[in-house]
Amino acid sequence: MNNKIILTIGRQFGSGGREIGKKLAKALNIAYYDKELMALAAKESGLSEEFFEKADERASSGLSYAFTMGYSYMGLFTPYNDILSNDRLFLYQSDTIRNLAEKGSCVIVGRCADYILRDNPNCLSFFIHNTKENRIQRILESQNLTVEQAKELILKTDKSRASYYNYYTNKEWGAASSYNFSIDVSVLGVDETVEFIKSFVERKINKQPPHFG
Amino acid sequence: MNNKIILTIGRQFGSGGREIGKKLAKALNIAYYDKELMALAAKESGLSEEFFEKADERASSGLSYAFTMGYSYMGLFTPYNDILSNDRLFLYQSDTIRNLAEKGSCVIVGRCADYILRDNPNCLSFFIHNTKENRIQRILESQNLTVEQAKELILKTDKSRASYYNYYTNKEWGAASSYNFSIDVSVLGVDETVEFIKSFVERKINKQPPHFG
Repeated sequence: MNNKIILTIGRQFGSGGREIGKKLAKALNIAYYDKELMALAAKESGLSEEFFEKADERASSGLSYAFTMGYSYMGLFTPYNDILSNDRLFLYQSDTIRNLAEKGSCVIVGRCADYILRDNPNCLSFFIHNTKENRIQRILESQNLTVEQAKELILKTDKSRASYYNYYTNKEWGAASSYNFSIDVSVLGVDETVEFIKSFVERKINKQPPHFG
Repeated sequence: MNNKIILTIGRQFGSGGREIGKKLAKALNIAYYDKELMALAAKESGLSEEFFEKADERASSGLSYAFTMGYSYMGLFTPYNDILSNDRLFLYQSDTIRNLAEKGSCVIVGRCADYILRDNPNCLSFFIHNTKENRIQRILESQNLTVEQAKELILKTDKSRASYYNYYTNKEWGAASSYNFSIDVSVLGVDETVEFIKSFVERKINKQPPHFG
């Protein structure tokens, strides 16, 4: 693609959002970032990836994780050597997301990327959802769980994602108006939903004056 | 169109949802219902259209409107001659919506039609939203208001629509997961958003086994 475009994807747990993000990146021949963001943020900040993994898409508890762990006394985290809270990790990760968006077109899944890049005119935000039945089915296909356990995992993970998003943004997770485009995967299925989203991206690119990057 | 399709449209006030619904119906050459529903419900129920207009997209106050007005003593409303509440009007209007969906393809704006037709396999539900700036601009173009008044009207009308929807359905107004598809009109503009939604409807029709009606 000649025009830079950053696609951010929010998603219900088990909806197929991650699969759609990957396939969309492939179809558009652009980069894809999901959990990879943590390794990058770790590298850029000089902190251990483990910190980012433990804090991944979890809102700050109000207590500093690192403070509780006793790390803050070590003075390692200059220029921010007071506490190493989830909030601090969020800021590091936000820098990483902004750097990636600077570099070139990509798909970024989760991590409030839509909010972090809210002033970027090349950004389009999506929210992917699915029927409860399809979500349970998808989870059972990849994890050895009972239906009840899958239901519980859906509730718990969505609640955690919503808390994280609502804490770090001034928007509401899963509200249609928080995203440019939201879609129920059950109508067209994964592959055709990817094609359909791609057609939206192409319409947007053809509409805007060309950008280069 | 050979295949029956019912498109329901929820919308933020001032978003352009009504205009999109009308243009979509025209583009697909199918019927369009918005405020027309009230005249139809009045005709079918034998009640005055005024009742439906006063209750339009307003949740029941808990007190019966008609009871307050003293109408319930007149025994006019058999077989429901106890009270003529907003709830009762909602039920009449729901019957009208189901009858229309039986008759043929159409676009229905508002009035919880997505929920009323939730078991109809030919139904697709949409939610139309727009940026705050565009919504204010659209309102100012059609009504003689100040920016502050337009902002207030947006808040008040959306709140009223949300209360109505949340009261009569088990879903949340404006939540992405309450609809098959939600879109921010500001990305493509009204006319191209219509084209894009039309392409979604066509994909859905081509995917499903043919229905006739």
